[in-house]
Amino acid sequence: MGIVVQKYGGTSVADPERIKAVAEHVAFTRSHGNDVVVVVSAMGKTTDNLISLANQVSSTHPGRELDMLLTTGERISMALVCMALADIGIDAVSFTGSQVGIITDTVHTKAKILEVKGDRLREALAAGKVAVVAGFQGVSTDREITTLGRGGSDTTAVALAAAVNADVCEIYTDVTGVFSSDPRIVPQARKLQRLDFEEMLEMAGAGSKVLALRSVEFARNHNVPLHVRSSFTWEHGTWVLDMSTINAQQSSKENAMEDPIISGVVHETGEAKVTVFGVADKPGISAALFEPLADANVNVDMIVQNTSKDGITDISFTVPKADLAAALKIVNTVAGELGAAGVTHDEAVAKISLVGAGMKTSPGVAAKMFRVLADAGVNIEMISTSTIRVSVVVGAANTEKAMRTLHTAFGLDSGQAYSAPLPERK
Amino acid sequence: MGIVVQKYGGTSVADPERIKAVAEHVAFTRSHGNDVVVVVSAMGKTTDNLISLANQVSSTHPGRELDMLLTTGERISMALVCMALADIGIDAVSFTGSQVGIITDTVHTKAKILEVKGDRLREALAAGKVAVVAGFQGVSTDREITTLGRGGSDTTAVALAAAVNADVCEIYTDVTGVFSSDPRIVPQARKLQRLDFEEMLEMAGAGSKVLALRSVEFARNHNVPLHVRSSFTWEHGTWVLDMSTINAQQSSKENAMEDPIISGVVHETGEAKVTVFGVADKPGISAALFEPLADANVNVDMIVQNTSKDGITDISFTVPKADLAAALKIVNTVAGELGAAGVTHDEAVAKISLVGAGMKTSPGVAAKMFRVLADAGVNIEMISTSTIRVSVVVGAANTEKAMRTLHTAFGLDSGQAYSAPLPERK
Repeated sequence: MGIVVQKYGGTSVADPERIKAVAEHVAFTRSHGNDVVVVVSAMGKTTDNLISLANQVSSTHPGRELDMLLTTGERISMALVCMALADIGIDAVSFTGSQVGIITDTVHTKAKILEVKGDRLREALAAGKVAVVAGFQGVSTDREITTLGRGGSDTTAVALAAAVNADVCEIYTDVTGVFSSDPRIVPQARKLQRLDFEEMLEMAGAGSKVLALRSVEFARNHNVPLHVRSSFTWEHGTWVLDMSTINAQQSSKENAMEDPIISGVVHETGEAKVTVFGVADKPGISAALFEPLADANVNVDMIVQNTSKDGITDISFTVPKADLAAALKIVNTVAGELGAAGVTHDEAVAKISLVGAGMKTSPGVAAKMFRVLADAGVNIEMISTSTIRVSVVVGAANTEKAMRTLHTAFGLDSGQAYSAPLPERK
Repeated sequence: MGIVVQKYGGTSVADPERIKAVAEHVAFTRSHGNDVVVVVSAMGKTTDNLISLANQVSSTHPGRELDMLLTTGERISMALVCMALADIGIDAVSFTGSQVGIITDTVHTKAKILEVKGDRLREALAAGKVAVVAGFQGVSTDREITTLGRGGSDTTAVALAAAVNADVCEIYTDVTGVFSSDPRIVPQARKLQRLDFEEMLEMAGAGSKVLALRSVEFARNHNVPLHVRSSFTWEHGTWVLDMSTINAQQSSKENAMEDPIISGVVHETGEAKVTVFGVADKPGISAALFEPLADANVNVDMIVQNTSKDGITDISFTVPKADLAAALKIVNTVAGELGAAGVTHDEAVAKISLVGAGMKTSPGVAAKMFRVLADAGVNIEMISTSTIRVSVVVGAANTEKAMRTLHTAFGLDSGQAYSAPLPERK
């Protein structure tokens, strides 16, 4: 007997038939002796349709009103899932983010969770009920309804899993798991059986859309095992967990060297590159540039500063395309104040990343990556690395060629990425 | 400077263009120095679509979940109206029923308002903002979201108008006012300039769909003047108010005898007739029959008991067709216990009512009505009267003939129903 949190994305509850299938699967999970907490997204394109309506009535979308508008989508889903459960004899009760005690800060449209009270959730489970919770939303410290931004429903699910100390947080989606690359671009991409939190974090940060970065961070910080799987096939998907414990347990049985160095090739085309030319290379320049961007909630991703020449340098960084206009406005002002030579930007770029825990112990991954891209005639515009990731920015037109070449060159096209058994399902 | 509450029904906010038109009208009302509280219904067919979804996922609709589902419709409308107002420079803030402090009992899907706190509403108005409130919903004493049932948005508007002591509660709809009869059935029906609360109450109770009965009751009890008008033409519509004060004020100027005896001919085809035959005429029989129906929330409308013969009588009553199955189940059980001879029912009936404050002082209205119908060959199945209303149940096939004949016979086809001036608009 354990507690399972199941999060169903928009495609998983897109229509009445899908909602009934979800109810059946919840019943199935309960029949195996588990308490179940269900977290739902808005049905299919509901959120997009609501945003479209907002655009049609107004060019001004006050955050408080936008949050009120968008939170209705998940409320519709949760009520319908409860009804579908009632129809097959499962006692269920729905909760909004507010009702379940997801307390956030006051930043509308991208609020952060401060606390999960979860009293009503625990009471519902103790009463033998399935709890169905609206994802993506909370209530702020000043008692207004807030939304958690992109991927917010995943974050809701993980936060609730942590709050009730769930055995697993299952993320149901329209793909069967996390892949070594995007199968739409790299046809030979394979489903990964499991990944370490760190790898998943880097993949999400590098552009993998399967799991939102924030939800993986939350899962790692609270050690909530994730299971990413399909609500269309219900087959086992990809586990994301703390591999260090598992590898230690299994060291006698397995040879860690069988693991490939690289887990995946990830791309991100939603960012634009901004370059500030000819700024003085002196203390405080970066702060002067990036503090106002942070204050404006612009998410700066890669930052590269050239080696300075004659005390003058160039600074390049990437921002989400949606934030580009806001970023340029700020950067142009700051660049003027700093006496910079100019500001340029380029939207036709893609970030390609290699991610793998194995690269910690395998030197030369970055060098090999650069060589492979050079041989393929792909020019590299920016580079950034972490201990288990190497990212490059290239021209958008080179995206497919770069990904496929790297996928093959790093041995991801065939064979098992991981041969370790799955954790026992309770 | 006054306070105007404006309620916009589903057709008035059916699409982005209508929502923008509403915003313009709110701006217009403010430009005349009024504080404005807007109450919105769900857009167009939203509520019907949500009910359809519920039916598709389940045959079981727990009231709590149904209320959560349906309240999303008004929330979408209110957020969009606020955005449309922001777009034309009007500072607006939205409130759910819960946020504005509409406290209800715990009867899901048809909750009754116990109290309107309205603190946030008054604060918003004091801060110079337009308040936009989701109609049809409240929060129960046990803190669950509830809905107010049919016509709930009208009730919300009137309750808020009473809470802020508004000068008028304007009900915007897709017709230009209250008519002397349904223009789809009686082409010669005329728009009434004004009506007394009592008349509107009787008309709503007798089947007029323009205003919900509960909202008129609330308006009468709190003396909130109503103005029913069109959001498509924005022309002046029908005022519903306490005529006794106005008539007293204007007695020198006007001859009350100019008012016609009858204000309107109203029909109701949504009810069915149930007859219990051959029950003993003794104390407690009616209670035994109607108490369980009340307990099951079946709204019994007309009740007629025949003069008993040999201590045996028949009891007929009407119920909404939607409640007929539930009613018959109960009535059959009770009839068995009471030793009744049998139970029959008939769905092919219509209730036709004459309503008019003038009939208080004009004897013989009922007699004339029966004569007119007899001359037209319409058989009367049931009769019930109040001081300002006479209702008959006839076969559904006679609906049009009965209404048109009565409309003509009671002098409603031409001339001004009321010649009194409209109240001054502040």
